[in-house]
Amino acid sequence: MTSNASLEKAAGNGLINRRHLLGLGLGGLGAAVSGQVLGQESGLDFEIPAWSRRPGPGPSAYGERSPHTEHIGRLAGNPNPLYPGGGSSRTPLHQLQGSITPNGLHFERHHAGVPEIDPAGHQLVINGLVRQALSYSYEDLLAYPMVSKNYFLECSGNSGTLLGNNPVDGTAQSIHGLVSCAEWTGIRLSTLLEEAGVQPDASWVSAVGADGASMGRSVPLDKAMDDVLIALYQNGEPIRPEQGYPMRLFVPGWEGNISVKWLTQLKLTSGPSQFRDETSKYTDTRPDRTSMQFTFPMGCKSVITSPSGQMALSRQGLYQVTGIAWSGAGAIQRVEVSADGGASWADALLESQQSDKALTRFRIPWQWQGQDAILMSRATDNQGNVQPTRQSILADRGNLSFYHNHGMQSWAVAADGAVRNVYV
Amino acid sequence: MTSNASLEKAAGNGLINRRHLLGLGLGGLGAAVSGQVLGQESGLDFEIPAWSRRPGPGPSAYGERSPHTEHIGRLAGNPNPLYPGGGSSRTPLHQLQGSITPNGLHFERHHAGVPEIDPAGHQLVINGLVRQALSYSYEDLLAYPMVSKNYFLECSGNSGTLLGNNPVDGTAQSIHGLVSCAEWTGIRLSTLLEEAGVQPDASWVSAVGADGASMGRSVPLDKAMDDVLIALYQNGEPIRPEQGYPMRLFVPGWEGNISVKWLTQLKLTSGPSQFRDETSKYTDTRPDRTSMQFTFPMGCKSVITSPSGQMALSRQGLYQVTGIAWSGAGAIQRVEVSADGGASWADALLESQQSDKALTRFRIPWQWQGQDAILMSRATDNQGNVQPTRQSILADRGNLSFYHNHGMQSWAVAADGAVRNVYV
Repeated sequence: MTSNASLEKAAGNGLINRRHLLGLGLGGLGAAVSGQVLGQESGLDFEIPAWSRRPGPGPSAYGERSPHTEHIGRLAGNPNPLYPGGGSSRTPLHQLQGSITPNGLHFERHHAGVPEIDPAGHQLVINGLVRQALSYSYEDLLAYPMVSKNYFLECSGNSGTLLGNNPVDGTAQSIHGLVSCAEWTGIRLSTLLEEAGVQPDASWVSAVGADGASMGRSVPLDKAMDDVLIALYQNGEPIRPEQGYPMRLFVPGWEGNISVKWLTQLKLTSGPSQFRDETSKYTDTRPDRTSMQFTFPMGCKSVITSPSGQMALSRQGLYQVTGIAWSGAGAIQRVEVSADGGASWADALLESQQSDKALTRFRIPWQWQGQDAILMSRATDNQGNVQPTRQSILADRGNLSFYHNHGMQSWAVAADGAVRNVYV
Repeated sequence: MTSNASLEKAAGNGLINRRHLLGLGLGGLGAAVSGQVLGQESGLDFEIPAWSRRPGPGPSAYGERSPHTEHIGRLAGNPNPLYPGGGSSRTPLHQLQGSITPNGLHFERHHAGVPEIDPAGHQLVINGLVRQALSYSYEDLLAYPMVSKNYFLECSGNSGTLLGNNPVDGTAQSIHGLVSCAEWTGIRLSTLLEEAGVQPDASWVSAVGADGASMGRSVPLDKAMDDVLIALYQNGEPIRPEQGYPMRLFVPGWEGNISVKWLTQLKLTSGPSQFRDETSKYTDTRPDRTSMQFTFPMGCKSVITSPSGQMALSRQGLYQVTGIAWSGAGAIQRVEVSADGGASWADALLESQQSDKALTRFRIPWQWQGQDAILMSRATDNQGNVQPTRQSILADRGNLSFYHNHGMQSWAVAADGAVRNVYV
């Protein structure tokens, strides 16, 4: 059992040194029972349940979830009849663990819905300022060398509601659920561009999708030749229709919209193509009404996913505060947590398979004894970027901007245990 | 384009230095086209497909696969009416990429099928040689601190058919598909054992599942206190029913059967409980008819997943040879590939998010010009273990053994491109 007296305090208002995560239970919730032997003679105080008394169904070709977990789902807005197929759905961050998002729960953002593409009828064309325009079938591409990496993907509109004047009564999912992470496998774009032969006057790659919106985005050639992928697999299996089946562009660390789904054309150009989604959208308007265009890498960011908005602490005692951190510029190096609205900070434990441009899970113990608290987290990446406060984002950009908010989230815990989104 | 003359040979019969994976296309399969502009005026030699001309369905709560990928499934044997719910299904290794197995394709091995457990009626009891027997509900356990790691899981019967006298006409899936890898999140077993208070005379933990078979296995206390988890999440979401929902024991690196699914009881004992599945099964019989019991860590192993059994090479030219490697003793440090049946070897490129007791993807280019070839791979881990040949396994154990085969796989490529399982 955890003796409270033995817990080393790490910061104000109940934060405990993260080393206590490693050896000690925070729960102490086990109920005393008298059973001493195995099986039905155990003297346990519960009946052997029905499911232990009969065989169940055997193996299957493709597994599904337990019906008892079907409440864990993506959160989509109401369909807009004037915008068929458009909209987004958000990952239930508050109900997940680890750093991988299962494929069925990866967030979505569509501009004309999900096309059902037959890969036999799909082509990827590379043209424009190349030595020789080329066309690839899906089968062709499967023969190319691939690489696999864990990468986060975040919509640049994620968390944008927090730049509004009044804090919404939201959850980690509804406010921050436009971020997910998967192991992406694909062909380096540079491999295909080298085959086509990039002409010296090319400096951008314009990517176009095969969806009804012909979603297009321009990628600077330097990035295209660096770590951009033609992604074909997501967490080991072919990417899902919602993520661009049979193939998508994947631009690590950059705003999600540029990772064009259902990729069908890459045109080498001497400048950006000024597509609709890089002019009328995904730009940040300043107080003087000029707009910043091409804000590509997503900022250094973190959010506490538990406890988080609309949760309720049901008992006093030790809790595990946990969340995710990420940076479009590199690897997460540090996450600090505050329980007193930023007055004091303690280092959380970081846990990750690979943190470069991937979600990194953090955890820290916290003792709640019914006091008011404001939980916050602050990420630092290995390029020296530190997650800013909401106020500093607003001071920097004004309040006409909606995209690219990576300010700190604050969750207030009330005396009755209710958790809600607040501004500090 | 790849100039063959510029490719540095790495070993006999066509193996190319792995560095060529990084900058060069192995395919060169792009077809020349004349299109120079974006959109419908592109002059491309294909019609704009129907799916690009209309919006598709919008976001959803839980995503599914493309109907065009439904041929990718687990391979299960025919149901045995005398063994209801029993049997296994195998991961389609030859159709996957990266190192993560998606949850719907994780291999299965059931002894009485999949119980449909309501977590509200499930308990985990710790009893036996403890200071105080304890019982935990699912909700209780969610409050405990957790850790997340990528770990492989392998059935000790995996690849056992290769110890038979004649090579089966099998695939990477049918021969080796009882291995998968996921990000597992759970509570350290040591956390709960410390709460219950382990008595000095306890040296084993007997784990029992809530399935109809009451699957039981004994775990040495040293391992239980080291890295064993009560796993609650798999690739971020609650574990699937087939993998033990609502909770399973997870014993990293050890034979899969010991990671008891649907875990309901942990009894601290002074010796192993000699359960059915550690006496009549999962032991290795030697030529003198004695059996080795408790072979726990899975051996250092690798298998080429492409090209692999029953595939056919459709053209001459450069190929990407790729596969997976793993070791129950630690991290994969090296994978060598041979194209001449073991006469010469070249180092493959390793790629992994985290390779300690996890699947590690390897890749190497290979030039096939219609010649006979025998492709093999050989893994080495960071504990100095080297994957043995099939012959050395047989010389060591005789041919009465079925479990724990980690010998090298050999795939023969014939002049017509057909790939098949052979013994060398």
